[in-house]
Amino acid sequence: MNDRAASRPLEGYFFEDYAVGRRFRHATPRTLTAADQALYIALTGARQPVHCSAPLARAMGHRDTPLDDLLVFNVAFGKTVPDISYNAVANLGYADVRFTAPVYPGDTISCASEVIGTKANSNAKSGIVYVRSRAENQDGTEVMSWVRWVMVTARKAAAGIPIVPASPKEVDAARFRAPSQPIPRALTAATASPRLWEDYEAGQVIDHPAGMTVEEADHMSATRLYQNTARVHFDALAAKSTTAGRRLVYGGHVISICRALSYDGLENAFAIAAIHGGTHSNPTFAGDTLYCRTVVLARQEIAGRADVGALRLRMIGAKDVPAAALPPADAGEKHPAVVLDLDYSVLIPRRQ
Amino acid sequence: MNDRAASRPLEGYFFEDYAVGRRFRHATPRTLTAADQALYIALTGARQPVHCSAPLARAMGHRDTPLDDLLVFNVAFGKTVPDISYNAVANLGYADVRFTAPVYPGDTISCASEVIGTKANSNAKSGIVYVRSRAENQDGTEVMSWVRWVMVTARKAAAGIPIVPASPKEVDAARFRAPSQPIPRALTAATASPRLWEDYEAGQVIDHPAGMTVEEADHMSATRLYQNTARVHFDALAAKSTTAGRRLVYGGHVISICRALSYDGLENAFAIAAIHGGTHSNPTFAGDTLYCRTVVLARQEIAGRADVGALRLRMIGAKDVPAAALPPADAGEKHPAVVLDLDYSVLIPRRQ
Amino acid sequence: MNDRAASRPLEGYFFEDYAVGRRFRHATPRTLTAADQALYIALTGARQPVHCSAPLARAMGHRDTPLDDLLVFNVAFGKTVPDISYNAVANLGYADVRFTAPVYPGDTISCASEVIGTKANSNAKSGIVYVRSRAENQDGTEVMSWVRWVMVTARKAAAGIPIVPASPKEVDAARFRAPSQPIPRALTAATASPRLWEDYEAGQVIDHPAGMTVEEADHMSATRLYQNTARVHFDALAAKSTTAGRRLVYGGHVISICRALSYDGLENAFAIAAIHGGTHSNPTFAGDTLYCRTVVLARQEIAGRADVGALRLRMIGAKDVPAAALPPADAGEKHPAVVLDLDYSVLIPRRQ
Repeated sequence: MNDRAASRPLEGYFFEDYAVGRRFRHATPRTLTAADQALYIALTGARQPVHCSAPLARAMGHRDTPLDDLLVFNVAFGKTVPDISYNAVANLGYADVRFTAPVYPGDTISCASEVIGTKANSNAKSGIVYVRSRAENQDGTEVMSWVRWVMVTARKAAAGIPIVPASPKEVDAARFRAPSQPIPRALTAATASPRLWEDYEAGQVIDHPAGMTVEEADHMSATRLYQNTARVHFDALAAKSTTAGRRLVYGGHVISICRALSYDGLENAFAIAAIHGGTHSNPTFAGDTLYCRTVVLARQEIAGRADVGALRLRMIGAKDVPAAALPPADAGEKHPAVVLDLDYSVLIPRRQ
Repeated sequence: MNDRAASRPLEGYFFEDYAVGRRFRHATPRTLTAADQALYIALTGARQPVHCSAPLARAMGHRDTPLDDLLVFNVAFGKTVPDISYNAVANLGYADVRFTAPVYPGDTISCASEVIGTKANSNAKSGIVYVRSRAENQDGTEVMSWVRWVMVTARKAAAGIPIVPASPKEVDAARFRAPSQPIPRALTAATASPRLWEDYEAGQVIDHPAGMTVEEADHMSATRLYQNTARVHFDALAAKSTTAGRRLVYGGHVISICRALSYDGLENAFAIAAIHGGTHSNPTFAGDTLYCRTVVLARQEIAGRADVGALRLRMIGAKDVPAAALPPADAGEKHPAVVLDLDYSVLIPRRQ
Repeated sequence: MNDRAASRPLEGYFFEDYAVGRRFRHATPRTLTAADQALYIALTGARQPVHCSAPLARAMGHRDTPLDDLLVFNVAFGKTVPDISYNAVANLGYADVRFTAPVYPGDTISCASEVIGTKANSNAKSGIVYVRSRAENQDGTEVMSWVRWVMVTARKAAAGIPIVPASPKEVDAARFRAPSQPIPRALTAATASPRLWEDYEAGQVIDHPAGMTVEEADHMSATRLYQNTARVHFDALAAKSTTAGRRLVYGGHVISICRALSYDGLENAFAIAAIHGGTHSNPTFAGDTLYCRTVVLARQEIAGRADVGALRLRMIGAKDVPAAALPPADAGEKHPAVVLDLDYSVLIPRRQ
């Protein structure tokens, strides 16, 4: 091919290609519809009610049924993969993940990223690339923004002065997007759960009872829906020559499954306000059964709102060990069964 | 958690929690769309034409393409699971299943149930709970109603005076919901089949030729789409300590597959009028290949209609034995390969 | 059953049933929606942007987001299966596949076929049936047309004077359906790829880097979505007594996967103009990993258009051998790993 302009090489980018300040406008825009939401439910079992019920969505002040926060995250994330993590060895972490506007059926999402840091590994075979990504809708309104860092293979040798961005430890609650209207009674009527903001307290542990076994077809269908092309998820033949020896489940699918599992016990946590940080502690493979524990880190107030608050939560995803069988929460992160450790906040009604 | 109101416990309800007369308003309402219908087709292979073709649906008097009867049933049923059968040992039977109004894309389904009977088992470890469930749309119109009974584990010891409701042996044909308009020629044009009501007679056996092998990803995706949370379908690890040792396929998925398989030979049976009763005779597992036999039980007239009649049918679902290889129909229910024995009625045009 | 009119037998048609000139109006019409497109993406990973982005589709002159060409092909093809290839031993080839009008969400597709040739095999056990099929929308506008030939089992003995139709070697570029408006900059902005018509030349080989492992649930869900009922794809038990011993992946799913894999390197090839011919050289099974090589056969001009041209391409699909590991292209067709060899043309913007 006679590439006249700088064009994404077929073999993807390598560590050396990521200069701090480099920007990527990711292919291709995606119009999301109610079908993506239905597929999301079929692939994850999500039951968060605002994304399931049009009358409830309208009662919450939405003009239509908004798409699940994590569906939007996964689609937006998927857009960045060909440019950012096609040659990633590992997806190391997330920070400052903000959900800044709802996405409705018919909205078209576009994504762009900027390199904000790089750090070569001492063995020069790879290095860490830090990226700030943004997703916007067809009107140019930002709907999501996040930082992530990935370990990327070097083409020849990773080198350079390390530039490590200062990621915020948390998203300030002042930046949470609260509902435009007072929380209606329809929400707790929909969930049939009386558990509200006041019923949770720091240190509380919720071992969600359900488990979900992941199949190859499930995680591949989810990851294809997100148009995420990272080959580690799809190519069983190529995977044979990797350390794992098999296909990896996309980490965003693990987050989605854990969020779905956490519905029982957090029924009224109707939206994700922010993800403060998170790591995929261990890989997940098809055949693994995922479980979820929630540790309540803090109750957070939303300024000017007596009807709604936030809960800062630690979501611990484990494989093949039921949540109730995990050791006490503080040790959770280091347990070999733990595949996900996410620090995030949800919105939930307050008692009035 | 500090539960101030009576709230569904995370571990679900047990036999002792089901007092006759207790009512449950199930979480959460669900807005169904054309995407649920497309997913239903992808997961079952359904071809009943009124749910596939908008012009045909309009010619049949519908304002939009109605969702498949069994899709609605499965979604409505799924809503009841967290409250009714989360701790069920077995789903014993159905009766008096009526389809009272069509459901269109955009309609929102809510469900409620009332306990109408209980009967402790003699070993006191479990008991049978009888429930009448109803699903309604956003306007409060009932769209479905059914009775089912399940064997539920006791928390401590199942006891009490047995109350066994008198379930009708059949849904009276006078209660079948006939199309609002005369059956148009477009229906038989769509199916390209000349087989009409007059072409079937009591005792006739139709061994549908196709078979469908069930995969774990298929039945789990279907069951997640229905937001049915019964853990027996999803948790391979927990399943290891059950009698079966593995995940069970949701019985409603088996019914849906058999209905799809029965299309060839019943092409013009455009709607399910009622399910009179049914049992899941044996469990279905991933890897099983399902086949379907139909035994015609009776031709039924629809009062005041010369254009449409009903057929009362016995649907026998078998695993790993092709329908034509099953013994004569009367022995069907006791054959070890039989997984489903359903007594139902369909609507079908009459020759004019 | 008392079949009063000629009706499709439950066991399907056999070689003897196909007289040249016989016409079939296939069951059943199908209304396609945005959900079918979302499912298509989830099942194949397709990223061709005109089918993903509503604003881009409108900028290309479409009134709505058109459905993927191959989704339409697979649905239309599926309609023909019960009448044409239910008893097919092998799907031998395609020719003269034309995409004559876009299909939009809400359009209803109907299909008809005419037998245009038959040729008994010398062993009389089977014979080749040649069929011209057409799909039209609810307005009677033809949206697709194609010829295929299949080897069909004989009921008793295949015989008769051979009639082999003269299939065109290619679809004339004058028949390609070009966009109604000049290609907007939005297209290359969406793909973020500068590769245009002028950047490809005859003889060029593109080894697309990605691979996709096929699961049973994936190909069966796709094939069910298309309402294709060929039992070789679904019935693991019946498959045990076949030569392969297992379920076959529907060839149209293989084409769709290869088209999706070929996105990287052909990003701006926004539509399929025609399929000139094609064969499924070897069967594909679940567990196989598919790869795709493209060989550029020719640049084709579109009369009167300086903004858009066509590329005639050879799509070679291989299993378990990465494209770059295949021998030089000319030997490709005979390589035992090759499962697909397709001669087709795509539309792509020209440099202006």
